Amino acid sequence: MYDAVVIGGGVAGYPAAVTLARRGFRVAVVEEGLVGGECTNYGCVPSKALLHYSWVVREARRLGLKVGGVSFASAFSFASRVAGEEREGLEALLERAGVEVVKGRGAVGSCKDGYCKVGVDGRVLDARWVLVATGSEPVVPPWVDTSCESILDNRGLFTRGLPDGASRVAVLGGGVGGFEVGVALSSLGVNVVLYEAMPRLLPSFPESISRFALRVARLYGVDVRLSSRVSRAKCKGGAIEVCVGSSCESFDAVIVMLGRRPRLEALGALGDAGPEKRGLCYENIPVCIAGDAAGPPFLAHKAIAEGLYFASRVAGLEWRLPRLYPQVVYTEPEMFDATLPGVRVQRLYRYYWGFAAPARIRGIPAQVVYGEVGVDENERIVAVRLVGPSVSELAGEAVLIIEKGLGLRDIIGVPHAHPSSSEVIMEIVLEALGLGYHRI
Amino acid sequence: MYDAVVIGGGVAGYPAAVTLARRGFRVAVVEEGLVGGECTNYGCVPSKALLHYSWVVREARRLGLKVGGVSFASAFSFASRVAGEEREGLEALLERAGVEVVKGRGAVGSCKDGYCKVGVDGRVLDARWVLVATGSEPVVPPWVDTSCESILDNRGLFTRGLPDGASRVAVLGGGVGGFEVGVALSSLGVNVVLYEAMPRLLPSFPESISRFALRVARLYGVDVRLSSRVSRAKCKGGAIEVCVGSSCESFDAVIVMLGRRPRLEALGALGDAGPEKRGLCYENIPVCIAGDAAGPPFLAHKAIAEGLYFASRVAGLEWRLPRLYPQVVYTEPEMFDATLPGVRVQRLYRYYWGFAAPARIRGIPAQVVYGEVGVDENERIVAVRLVGPSVSELAGEAVLIIEKGLGLRDIIGVPHAHPSSSEVIMEIVLEALGLGYHRI
Repeated sequence: MYDAVVIGGGVAGYPAAVTLARRGFRVAVVEEGLVGGECTNYGCVPSKALLHYSWVVREARRLGLKVGGVSFASAFSFASRVAGEEREGLEALLERAGVEVVKGRGAVGSCKDGYCKVGVDGRVLDARWVLVATGSEPVVPPWVDTSCESILDNRGLFTRGLPDGASRVAVLGGGVGGFEVGVALSSLGVNVVLYEAMPRLLPSFPESISRFALRVARLYGVDVRLSSRVSRAKCKGGAIEVCVGSSCESFDAVIVMLGRRPRLEALGALGDAGPEKRGLCYENIPVCIAGDAAGPPFLAHKAIAEGLYFASRVAGLEWRLPRLYPQVVYTEPEMFDATLPGVRVQRLYRYYWGFAAPARIRGIPAQVVYGEVGVDENERIVAVRLVGPSVSELAGEAVLIIEKGLGLRDIIGVPHAHPSSSEVIMEIVLEALGLGYHRI
Repeated sequence: MYDAVVIGGGVAGYPAAVTLARRGFRVAVVEEGLVGGECTNYGCVPSKALLHYSWVVREARRLGLKVGGVSFASAFSFASRVAGEEREGLEALLERAGVEVVKGRGAVGSCKDGYCKVGVDGRVLDARWVLVATGSEPVVPPWVDTSCESILDNRGLFTRGLPDGASRVAVLGGGVGGFEVGVALSSLGVNVVLYEAMPRLLPSFPESISRFALRVARLYGVDVRLSSRVSRAKCKGGAIEVCVGSSCESFDAVIVMLGRRPRLEALGALGDAGPEKRGLCYENIPVCIAGDAAGPPFLAHKAIAEGLYFASRVAGLEWRLPRLYPQVVYTEPEMFDATLPGVRVQRLYRYYWGFAAPARIRGIPAQVVYGEVGVDENERIVAVRLVGPSVSELAGEAVLIIEKGLGLRDIIGVPHAHPSSSEVIMEIVLEALGLGYHRI
């Protein structure tokens, strides 16, 4: 009998499993693929490594240095090495914590008398608590010819890399994943065409951020096609034909980044037809869901938070789920949106720092820092959105400000280090209070 | 009659001047040197640019790339270009805001009937308010032979650069300035010996951070000599002899980073013998001091905050001076210390993330993220210290947490973006609350 069986060893599952094991619970993680899941192996981690490599190349050249030895092979091998090291770290972490890793595909079986059965390829584990943390899978529409070797989703891209000699690549989807990959490949000299069905990039972000994303994509040389719904991606004589309506173009490779869909097979009979759920957990049986499997937004920090919610529940510890999760883009400049859902922004204060971003943050195209802060009718801050170098680091401060219900006046005089992107938070507050000194 | 005369156009003076001018006040800035002052021209800005250049070179090599064209000349020319662009931006900013820039050395004269006279090289300006923002100057002890061309303070370094062919350089002083310059030059292939009189680097920081600084200095190849009080730096046949007691070594150049001292000549008779001061302002006359001139800590964000304090006072606007200023180091990894002065840390929670820092933050020696959070006897957070890539961006969040009197439980469940250094704040809280999952 396990205290907890966690189905899926990704960023929702492993924090929950390690936390519980370290507190003395008997825990198993059931994993059919690689520990670390999508984020560590095929998502956040290798994509950030790829962005980092491509940015260093670009930045070294901007500084007037000669850079040799750049290749897709070395870029993807760096990304893959980083992902591998991270995965090995997690494997060691699980082992040292005493978590049993069971290889195979897990599924929740029957629950009664306060415990559930979890099937793993024929074997049955008994569990007082079950966490379904099975993640998500890429959405691949039926008009994508999946028999083509050069049509890649995120898994294909980060395991096989780009085909040798690929010089013209289509990225389908201008959300965070497609945008990041498009910018990274374009920096490495690939001719990238980015197709987005909506009239703007990053459709889940506010329009102001989408406009910056378009500017950034163009600075990096990405050929962005907005309002372009692709209707076909098909192998044709060694190349791939991508069509928007009747207008077709030929590419060496196509990367499909059209969103993700929760994987819920492990829920078995509990799926849609199962007992009532309250939030992340079922009401009368000890089963919870966390991470991408629990639905959008598909964010690693949401997965971690929900995994820890499960662990806290099992261990009887204090925990709170936040009212919002920031959406983050890791290009240079970075971008994020932290907006309280369901609240009307009454007034939006904007700040644009274009003329002289400090030296520390000069490594960006256009040397831009942009910020906007939205307040509700009670003058409480309900939205913070930033564009600039390293602003991913500020998403936590933004959420803290919103979660604590602070207003602009609460931030007066809180020093932010000079020089840094974080000063933009101060600057917006100063502007709003009539003390702004940078923007004219 | 000016509404305000600001003596000194650096980071204390220009924000005050621009803010007031934008609100319709008649403002003059008196500047004897370059607008932007020490930070923009010879300090924070070019040193960050130098660190950036040297880090990009090092990082490109770590990624297996071949890097050519690296030279001190190009590194210093980049730093100087960045400083120049920043200064030109500030000049334009002052002009567009309608601030009159008066070239010359300003000094406060007599004050009566609610206004003061400010002398500028013989000319006299009448001012309803005066801000003395004259900055600081390097401390150069008498045993330093200032006639040597190759003995440089920060001004000399960032205007003249290193002498041609300098391959062995002594840095005197292991505070923030000396540490940053030592690491940058060592990354560029200079043989750097760093002398510090105290038994640790960064003596104004907590010891835990000093230990990381030593580790970082060594990773970058800096030869650190602790407890080594230099007693002589003297030209000797083309080279410079640096002695600790009777033990002397020879260098091609010496960089003096032994601290700074406020410049208060502009206060004239108001200096030590003047009327009573309350905080930053005099009690019965309309004169305030801001920035380095007002005393330590010598930090640009303190200068900005104090300049805006003056502007708010003149304009009758709301402002608060914070109870603490973070000290920041901009090497990679970056480091900061935000500690509430005069409060006893009752308990310190530590967190060390060494095994698998996420991909985004892999561009650092040792791939380390370290954090510590101190609480007082009421469990309020009174200290946050971090080491890791981009943590300068988190100093503002740290100060916000401390200023708002938050405890560890107030931060439960506030998501910090994954992957980022900011997660370390969450991790410390998790550890402290028994939910930590990374460290074993």
